[in-house]
This record gives sequence, structure tokens and C-alpha cells, in this order.
Amino acid sequence: MGIEEIKTADLNSDQFIADQVANIRETVGAGMAINALSGGVDSSVVTLLGHKALGDQLKTYFIDNGLMREGEPQAVVDMFADLGVPVINLDAQDEFFAALAGITDPEEKREAITRTFYKDVFGRLVRESGAKHLLQGTILTDVDETVAGIKRQHNVFEQLGIDPQEAFGYKIIEPLVQIRKDGVRKVGEALGLPSAIYARPPFPGPALSARVIGEATRERIALVRKATVIVEEELLSSGAFQCMAILHEDRVTGMRDGERDFGLQIEIRCWDSVDARQATPTELSFDVLRKLADRMTSEVPGVVSATYNIATKPPSTMEAV
Amino acid sequence: MGIEEIKTADLNSDQFIADQVANIRETVGAGMAINALSGGVDSSVVTLLGHKALGDQLKTYFIDNGLMREGEPQAVVDMFADLGVPVINLDAQDEFFAALAGITDPEEKREAITRTFYKDVFGRLVRESGAKHLLQGTILTDVDETVAGIKRQHNVFEQLGIDPQEAFGYKIIEPLVQIRKDGVRKVGEALGLPSAIYARPPFPGPALSARVIGEATRERIALVRKATVIVEEELLSSGAFQCMAILHEDRVTGMRDGERDFGLQIEIRCWDSVDARQATPTELSFDVLRKLADRMTSEVPGVVSATYNIATKPPSTMEAV
Repeated sequence: MGIEEIKTADLNSDQFIADQVANIRETVGAGMAINALSGGVDSSVVTLLGHKALGDQLKTYFIDNGLMREGEPQAVVDMFADLGVPVINLDAQDEFFAALAGITDPEEKREAITRTFYKDVFGRLVRESGAKHLLQGTILTDVDETVAGIKRQHNVFEQLGIDPQEAFGYKIIEPLVQIRKDGVRKVGEALGLPSAIYARPPFPGPALSARVIGEATRERIALVRKATVIVEEELLSSGAFQCMAILHEDRVTGMRDGERDFGLQIEIRCWDSVDARQATPTELSFDVLRKLADRMTSEVPGVVSATYNIATKPPSTMEAV
Repeated sequence: MGIEEIKTADLNSDQFIADQVANIRETVGAGMAINALSGGVDSSVVTLLGHKALGDQLKTYFIDNGLMREGEPQAVVDMFADLGVPVINLDAQDEFFAALAGITDPEEKREAITRTFYKDVFGRLVRESGAKHLLQGTILTDVDETVAGIKRQHNVFEQLGIDPQEAFGYKIIEPLVQIRKDGVRKVGEALGLPSAIYARPPFPGPALSARVIGEATRERIALVRKATVIVEEELLSSGAFQCMAILHEDRVTGMRDGERDFGLQIEIRCWDSVDARQATPTELSFDVLRKLADRMTSEVPGVVSATYNIATKPPSTMEAV
């Protein structure tokens, strides 16, 4: 199945919104639809498009998988309440951590989250709601990378020959599949999303579990969540495309109070990019890098070392896992 | 046993050399002594002091443990030949790799190298040579860190209550134990060592096995040896105290020719320091960092990512393992 790309330079946001709203209405008809809002720009834009098209026919859920950033669940629900869009917060932490237990391979992690999300948690919601359609924020870059086998995005099925109707019992509508990240931001701005959302750096589908090398336990997620707060406090204002903290599984030698401490290492990545296909490390000053390292080693328990990514994409990817 | 520090500012190199030469002569008497030269500044200075004191009574060995930098064994032997000091090159690679097989814990690695070095290889040499004394380049910082339990230096026994006479069959003489790295450089200069040696950045006792997180196999040592060549080519002229490449065990996602490549990561550390007790990352330009990353990912097979250390010592140590 070929997807016709709409280049950002050619994108007429108002026309795009009108087309997608009409398309969603026609596809869903008189039935119910649901969607999951993660708080990222893609799912936020889809939520507004869906709400515009369907009003009360759309139920929007925030699935708290325990892998979100600090304070994220409540912040997202509150922000959309201000926009007049009701969002239901569903605590599914136990289900996700049970599915992730013992898994260290990145692809298996994504697989476990995908299965838990779509089949267990969402499958149940769809059955309970009677919805026959699911709206989601797949963008063209997700499709490219999944087809190329670089990464398994959690939201790409048809391109892999998987029929969600057959596999999970519902149809997926992907209003953003012809555009890329910068196009999504443009549409978000036109939809009146507050800049805190449409300018928000991308966050991976598997959330903080993609920021932990090795097993994503509750404890390790809590550590990388703390590190993520620090990175975002120090770097979000830098104008970088995306910034992140990654908890390594490797241990390195450090010292505390004159004694040996075989501890943890946090890798910081901060990317300059237009559309996520290519990216280069942001040229942060050493004042900023030193402050990041000092905060990581003093505020995140057990961390004795911090590094900054200096590789480009390619050959690196933006996320480590 | 208390050691009286000679501060570098108070160090009279000529007096220090005369005192140590006299002390070595008196301790060794008419017998034979041996020492191992690694090519680092500490063991180079000890070799010259010992040669000055003992002449033909001293046999100097270069033990090729397979963990050395590219071209190091021959370069060291040649350099000392130019200084009139004969050095015997002993290939013990098989013994060291056999001892390291299956070991991932850093302390156990050091232990395996220590045992192989002192007990197996050196013990055999001492028995064959009839030497009763071993000269070695322990400095005060090694003693401090070993006593504090931060790191097990490979050359500190008495301070840990181990009697080398009893354990290994010989006595150890440590002419540099009252001074630190900057003092050693000062003495080396006074001894007429070429600047390529006395200004040489420190290299750890366990050599490249300390630059590999996880098992130090022949293959992984070969990778980090390549990375070390790159780091030294790009950074030795920067005037940094020490620079290194570390091969991580963690794997990270990358892409090659549009396809997913779950690959290796190299961490680069470059330190500014006076005496190795405290250290800060050198403020390299992003031009240099980018070139380092490009060379690592294009010249070292399997590497898709590179990072630069931004933590200080403490709480980090200079070496990772």
C-alpha cells in the first residue's frame, strides 16, 4: 500500500483539517470511536481532529502505563479539560509492569507494550465501549522506519500486513499518516493547540521503557523519570528538537565519600533535527553539560557518571532502545 | 605503615634520584633484580632508576599481555634500546586471555590479571632469573585508592597486608611510592627520558581490559584497541591529562544503509587533571567531538553510537572499569 506524502511546504493546514474531519466522519458514520491520548503532539492533534469530527461519538482515554514522565497523566487530562475535551484517565500500571517483567531485548519490550496496550487494555475498552474505530497518530516517519525494519513503532500494523480488525477487533484510522513531525506541528498550531503541546518534543511510544537499557522495572523507570525531569528542566528551553536521558545497564566505577561506588550511568541525548530522519547532537555549552552531570550524579540515586551523545543519526537512531 | 608524601613543589629531582638509586643498591646488594616495563611513565622512570642503580644486575621485561595499545610492545622495546637499556619482550597473550575468559566483574578482572602477572608469568621469570627483588612503579595515588577500597590497583600489596615474599617468592621495591603523577613526570624529565615517555598520558595497569565493560575477549580488546588509536590520534595533542575510549557492553539501536543495526557504543573520556585525584572533562570543541564520533562509527566495526563523558571525578573515577 503506497502512502502519498504531503510535504510540509505544500501543506495547507485548514484544507488538511477539513479533509481529515470529513474523512473521519464518513469512516465512523453513526458509531462510536475511541482514541488514546499520550500527551505527545501526534496524539494531541488526533484528539482535536477526532473531537472536531465526532464530538460525543469519540471517547478519549489517557492510559497510564506507569512509563510516563513525572506528573504527566494529570497534566494531560487537565490541559485537555481546559480545551473542552474530556479525557478519561485509566490506571493500567500493574498490567504493563507485569508484561515487561524479565524482558531486556528492545524489540520484545516494544512487543510487550504493544500487546498490552492494544490487545489487553484497549481491546477491553473497545469491547466495553462498543467502539468499532480507533483513531491514532501514526506519522509517515513511523511507517518508513517500521517498513525498513529499523524500529518497530507501536502503531503501525497495516504496513506490516497485520489486520487490526482481525487481530484486535477494531479498525484503525490514521489521519496524520501522510505528514511528518513538522507538518503535525503546523496542523496543531492551526487547530489552536497551546504551544506547550504543539511545540512539545516527541516522546516515544514505549515511553520511559525506551529510555532504559535492559529490564524496565518500576524502580529503574523511577530513576530514569527523575533523570528526564532534570534533562527537560535544563534543555527544553534550548530549542532542541528532542532531548532525553537514558539509563544504562552497564555499571561503571565511581567514588562517594572516598569509597568505591560501582554505580549507574545516565546518557544524555539532545538532538537538532527538522523531521527526525536525520539529526545531529545539539552543541550545548560545557557549563550546561557540567550542570546536567552534577544534577544527575547528585539527584538521581546511584548515578556516578553521565555522558553526552556525540553521534549523528544515521548511523545512530534518536532513541537508544 | 605510613608513607611520607613528598609534595611535588618540594621535590628536588636530583636529590630524589640520588636517594632512590642509593636505596635500590643497598636493598638489592649483589643479587639480581627484575622489573616489568609497561611503557607508561611510572614503569619507565623506575626502569631508568633501576638501570642507573644496578646496571646488568637488573633485567627488564616487557610482558605482552595482549591488552596493550596498537604497536606498543615493539615501540617500547625500541625506545629503550635507544636509551641504552635492553628490554626483553615476552609474549604471554594466551595466558592472560585464558585467565580473563568468562569474567565480567571489574574487580575479578583486575584480580585475574594480577594473579597471571605476578604469580604465573612473573613468578616463573623470577624463579628462572634467580632474582630476589622486583622493582615497580607504584605511586602514592595508587596506594590511597586501594586503601580506600575505590579500586584495586594491580601493584599494591603491602598496604593491603599481603606479603609478596610469602605470596609470590620475592620482595618488592617501590621507589616512587612517596610521589604522585606530576612528581613522577618531573623526575622522568630530570632522568633524561624523552618527552614522548615522560609526558605520556597514564595507562591503567589492567591495560585495555579496563577499557572494556564486560568480558575482555581477544575480539573486544581488538575493537577497543582500534578506538584507542583514534582517540589518541585526535586528542593527544590537546594537552589533556588523559584520554580514553571505553567499549560498552550495552547495545544501542542504530541504522546502516536504511536498515536496523543493533550495535555497539564507544564512550570517550578526556580528562583535565593535575594529579589524578580530581579531574574534569576537557572542554573539547564540537568539531573535535563530531570527528571522533564519525571515526568511531565508520572505522570500528559494529559501532553505531559514541558518547563523551561529562561527569567529574569525584563522583566518577577516571577509568570506567
